[in-house]
Amino acid sequence: MNVFDVGIIGGGVIGQGIAYELSKAGLKTAVFESGEIGGKATSAAAGMLGAHSENEKRDIFFELCLESRNLYPSLAKELLEQSGVDIELVQEGMYRLAFTEEEGRFLQSLADEDELEWHSRENVLANEPHVSEDIAGALWLKHDGQVKGSSVCHAYAKGARKYGASIFEQCPVFDVIKEGKAYKLVTSQGVFICGKVVVSSGVWSGFFFEKLGLRNPMKPVKGECLAIKPKKLVINKTVFYEHCYIVPKKDGTVIIGATSYENDWDTHPTVKGVSELMIKVQKIMPEIGSEPVVSAWSSLRPQTADGWPYFAEHPEHEGIFFATGHYRNGILLAPITSLIVKDMILKTNQYERYVHSFSLNRLLSDAKGR
Amino acid sequence: MNVFDVGIIGGGVIGQGIAYELSKAGLKTAVFESGEIGGKATSAAAGMLGAHSENEKRDIFFELCLESRNLYPSLAKELLEQSGVDIELVQEGMYRLAFTEEEGRFLQSLADEDELEWHSRENVLANEPHVSEDIAGALWLKHDGQVKGSSVCHAYAKGARKYGASIFEQCPVFDVIKEGKAYKLVTSQGVFICGKVVVSSGVWSGFFFEKLGLRNPMKPVKGECLAIKPKKLVINKTVFYEHCYIVPKKDGTVIIGATSYENDWDTHPTVKGVSELMIKVQKIMPEIGSEPVVSAWSSLRPQTADGWPYFAEHPEHEGIFFATGHYRNGILLAPITSLIVKDMILKTNQYERYVHSFSLNRLLSDAKGR
Amino acid sequence: MNVFDVGIIGGGVIGQGIAYELSKAGLKTAVFESGEIGGKATSAAAGMLGAHSENEKRDIFFELCLESRNLYPSLAKELLEQSGVDIELVQEGMYRLAFTEEEGRFLQSLADEDELEWHSRENVLANEPHVSEDIAGALWLKHDGQVKGSSVCHAYAKGARKYGASIFEQCPVFDVIKEGKAYKLVTSQGVFICGKVVVSSGVWSGFFFEKLGLRNPMKPVKGECLAIKPKKLVINKTVFYEHCYIVPKKDGTVIIGATSYENDWDTHPTVKGVSELMIKVQKIMPEIGSEPVVSAWSSLRPQTADGWPYFAEHPEHEGIFFATGHYRNGILLAPITSLIVKDMILKTNQYERYVHSFSLNRLLSDAKGR
Amino acid sequence: MNVFDVGIIGGGVIGQGIAYELSKAGLKTAVFESGEIGGKATSAAAGMLGAHSENEKRDIFFELCLESRNLYPSLAKELLEQSGVDIELVQEGMYRLAFTEEEGRFLQSLADEDELEWHSRENVLANEPHVSEDIAGALWLKHDGQVKGSSVCHAYAKGARKYGASIFEQCPVFDVIKEGKAYKLVTSQGVFICGKVVVSSGVWSGFFFEKLGLRNPMKPVKGECLAIKPKKLVINKTVFYEHCYIVPKKDGTVIIGATSYENDWDTHPTVKGVSELMIKVQKIMPEIGSEPVVSAWSSLRPQTADGWPYFAEHPEHEGIFFATGHYRNGILLAPITSLIVKDMILKTNQYERYVHSFSLNRLLSDAKGR
Repeated sequence: MNVFDVGIIGGGVIGQGIAYELSKAGLKTAVFESGEIGGKATSAAAGMLGAHSENEKRDIFFELCLESRNLYPSLAKELLEQSGVDIELVQEGMYRLAFTEEEGRFLQSLADEDELEWHSRENVLANEPHVSEDIAGALWLKHDGQVKGSSVCHAYAKGARKYGASIFEQCPVFDVIKEGKAYKLVTSQGVFICGKVVVSSGVWSGFFFEKLGLRNPMKPVKGECLAIKPKKLVINKTVFYEHCYIVPKKDGTVIIGATSYENDWDTHPTVKGVSELMIKVQKIMPEIGSEPVVSAWSSLRPQTADGWPYFAEHPEHEGIFFATGHYRNGILLAPITSLIVKDMILKTNQYERYVHSFSLNRLLSDAKGR
Repeated sequence: MNVFDVGIIGGGVIGQGIAYELSKAGLKTAVFESGEIGGKATSAAAGMLGAHSENEKRDIFFELCLESRNLYPSLAKELLEQSGVDIELVQEGMYRLAFTEEEGRFLQSLADEDELEWHSRENVLANEPHVSEDIAGALWLKHDGQVKGSSVCHAYAKGARKYGASIFEQCPVFDVIKEGKAYKLVTSQGVFICGKVVVSSGVWSGFFFEKLGLRNPMKPVKGECLAIKPKKLVINKTVFYEHCYIVPKKDGTVIIGATSYENDWDTHPTVKGVSELMIKVQKIMPEIGSEPVVSAWSSLRPQTADGWPYFAEHPEHEGIFFATGHYRNGILLAPITSLIVKDMILKTNQYERYVHSFSLNRLLSDAKGR
Repeated sequence: MNVFDVGIIGGGVIGQGIAYELSKAGLKTAVFESGEIGGKATSAAAGMLGAHSENEKRDIFFELCLESRNLYPSLAKELLEQSGVDIELVQEGMYRLAFTEEEGRFLQSLADEDELEWHSRENVLANEPHVSEDIAGALWLKHDGQVKGSSVCHAYAKGARKYGASIFEQCPVFDVIKEGKAYKLVTSQGVFICGKVVVSSGVWSGFFFEKLGLRNPMKPVKGECLAIKPKKLVINKTVFYEHCYIVPKKDGTVIIGATSYENDWDTHPTVKGVSELMIKVQKIMPEIGSEPVVSAWSSLRPQTADGWPYFAEHPEHEGIFFATGHYRNGILLAPITSLIVKDMILKTNQYERYVHSFSLNRLLSDAKGR
Repeated sequence: MNVFDVGIIGGGVIGQGIAYELSKAGLKTAVFESGEIGGKATSAAAGMLGAHSENEKRDIFFELCLESRNLYPSLAKELLEQSGVDIELVQEGMYRLAFTEEEGRFLQSLADEDELEWHSRENVLANEPHVSEDIAGALWLKHDGQVKGSSVCHAYAKGARKYGASIFEQCPVFDVIKEGKAYKLVTSQGVFICGKVVVSSGVWSGFFFEKLGLRNPMKPVKGECLAIKPKKLVINKTVFYEHCYIVPKKDGTVIIGATSYENDWDTHPTVKGVSELMIKVQKIMPEIGSEPVVSAWSSLRPQTADGWPYFAEHPEHEGIFFATGHYRNGILLAPITSLIVKDMILKTNQYERYVHSFSLNRLLSDAKGR
């Protein structure tokens, strides 16, 4: 019978993570994915676990990122065991570069005892000799790292299946209709009755907000990436400057990302975007210019007005949950998101402060910024 | 403003063909595609223009197929001019093989003056020397041919854009809501007001039937294909036996298709399906065994209860049209479908008999078969 | 037995063309290719048939190009018939752009009656509306065109096989040793006795020059290309400026080429090369910036000191022929090269003037330039 | 200047491993690769480290395999540090299946204390529940494992470059000529003077044996492989039966190999070969039938008469070494081969017994078999 405890709309890394945690907790879970598992923003991600890389404030979003990042080591082991898939976790730290003295002073001001350490130009060049000699130094984000995003999603999905979850591909959800205490999900593969519903379909979640009486809080931000496979360069750590990241993967490939175009729904990498990225990266690491280009791709990241995700139950429709709007941080935040959603559904109240901070109420004040 | 004369749901070859004809006729047209243009069944098709290949009756469906096939030569020229894309039309005929005497007698009984000619075993082997020597002969379908399905779709799309059509990718339609005399299409990219609506999203059209008060008349039939690139074999004509087709393309690739699994929503080619196809094709043309495998893929074909498409206006909601259910014949029927839909929308009454025969009324009698 | 009338070293478009013509003429022919057929410069070519595109003089090299180009229409038909492969011949002309008044005056000076026509800025933009508005006009090379290079090679190879030629892949030739009136070719697949030998292995031909007592007259020129698949742009004609070509293919892909790095043996497209090409092409046709990037690749073109190929018998070793050094013109010159080599081998003296002009004697005067 | 201590002919995993060890030891080393690094048999390998998988005798070849396998854990760390590339070492053991009682008794007879353990049918199915229920049991090869072959090669190459090695791609060696105490290597990129020469070009090494006065002891054995990416199946250990291996990789892909065709120089996977492999694997693990096919490929393995490699100095030409003929064991044996060659060149006499056993003298007795 098409009856489930929980129906999850969206089979990217967020949806699969939630399915994994819920089915592991004994709930009968189904994932409805309109295309293929992890086929959109998830596979396009460079997979950085950058709790610090774009957080300069020490606010609750930073804490969320840090906590999620710190869940990865044990999760990596668990998923390998359950699914046979290695998510390629690396935690060697990242370099955030400064090119001017002013940038350097700013980064130095961020240094702390545990996580962030200022490295002089000489020190950086000793560790990463291919970085441009024009740098002024770099902040070393000691414990930030990376995984392979598509593998996290794939591992979660295989693990969820092992715990009994059903995963429907090519199965868009068109409608969510209240039916007693449960909900009917109307899909291309028929109607499913779900006790609870989780909306986690990235930028395509917008429809469900509106459908369920809320304002759509998201817009797409197109991001293009590039992969190279260096013959000579050995890059040890992720290095970034402004929004250009150089992420060395375990198989010797290096991913370079990402451009950022707001409100562009196109998912193809363009000549303009790719060439901009290529020019930027050659400034950061000039020798990359002579290394082989492998491929380029693009995806749509779901951006909310404040750039933070939503973890929230619908204010009026009990049992409908939103776990979306992760913008550039979907891979990083998948582990904590999965636990928070489980917590909301099982009412175990472990993550109340996150539920409080990443609530839908922000929608009301979004226009004012923060 | 998001207002269009016609909104088309589904950007495969059918949707793009309709968009092309409508925008060429001066209507302000939009296509809403949930993924990428032509990214589903359209690109997976072998592109056969087989009016005869699976039609043994001389009914109106056969006439539809024949008329559509015969539109291709002039369409090929027009699309090349409008879009710069060559759809790779070939009309060299096909061979339908007989392996047993009984099959031979049956095929001989189909021969006619204009289109179908019986060829003896020797004759077939003289023309296509790589066909198995075990054949009893073949029916030559003189005027059947092929195109490159993805190019037809791409050409239609570029042509439609040139005539002013808007094409939205990554844009699923979730809802169709009556709004005065027009319809609101609720999509991931916002709400669009469309005077008329065409549903042409293949097997995913089912939802819109149900949404609009009708029974979903379609089920998916998964089909796997295989491409080889022969080094030695020169195959001139498409050759087929039962449901295994060998289709030589203009670039030297040969497409072999297709398996047929009902009610399977999976879109990956499987070990089982691909190996079955490989075994079948080696019986038909043994030397293919030593030729290089290039790739394998799969898609979902929208099958109705009688295997015929629908060309129909909604019985209760004026201005909603269905052009879907093309099963294995989407590429073949795209040209005539586009004209029929234009005819229905512009009320030019040129294709009344098709509109009559491919009506939604069949839904009522579907269960009875025909 | 491993005995052939002619052994051809190199299985790119030149080698396969020669194999085709020789085996068609009744000679027992073998091709020895160190990797895969057409796997190097041949597949990387944009396939332009540009008799005029880089020839401003009206010398014998221009005549050679023109004659070879004019062989293509009948060759295309013949190869389709023999091999089933369509080489995608297009002869719609090309635009050579002028951006400055001076460039415009120079191009106008080249205009003639039959082949070259000056088009004003307005005229060009009417025909090719996506070209930059900054142009001063363009020379229209009326009859220049293009084919799909890899298909020409593949078609030649299949045709040659049909006429009885043997094609050995993964079969490098290490040595050519005189043996009575014939030659032993020492390969990884054993020793072959060949009455005559043709060296046509592009930039890798150099070794055979030296091995046979001559100076190696070639150096590699690395060229990177880029493919895009425009959603909107309809480009009808090949357009070029300086060394940046925009070549619309029949399937809707557009190839953009090429960079030019001398003495670089690397065959990977690099970040530097690809980004340079992307920047150049956006100047020529700004809207290309928003079109999807499909892939990038690179190859090595064999450049002689004067940029002309060699068609010559070895001055001391009768029966050894060189047909190599085609630089950027391998696809264009394959048909005439094949006929010239056949002519030399069969001693039919039809192409004496080319044999005279593209002789090895130039080697002596290369250093002096011309 | 083009002068090196050692010139290595062949840039697969064997050649790069040797280059790594030699340049690490301070020698000025060059690798000459006719195509791209690791582009032939190396990338095609499934990467098994199967000391036991095909060795039933306890002879010196078995010892060689075991010793090389046991070098991998520390090598993996070293290469990660030097090159940034993770070679994806897994050492979870393999299952060698028995389907009949007789096969079971034979495998039980092989069980020993340290490495080989007999598992009953129930035990195997508990560990690998997707294996066919028709098995009689399996031998567990406790410490055998796998790596990613292309990554081993890539890591060795980057490491070698870091230690100063020069790697020439697209650079076939045509000749080896004695020049005083050194050798001239004649290549497409010019002549290089090398104090010593190592021949490690797999099945293409044959020429150098003959060139240097020896009999070519190798023939190609074509092997086809297949990759699938299971959605459901979790396979923990490599499982094999006869010559069909199922190798789960860390990224969730499963490689299935290999067919075996002697004396076939073709490098394309064929319809026949791939379908045979698909049928075999479905017998071993029936549920694989419904999993997605990703790709198929093929390569040529260099087989000697006794299936053992050669590690030997030329009997007459001092300073010419052979390290080739690794057949199905190139990845497994790369580490020990690299050390043995270093040992021979530096005359450190650590591996005398291997040098003794894998000598060229076997050539004389090859015909007699063993």
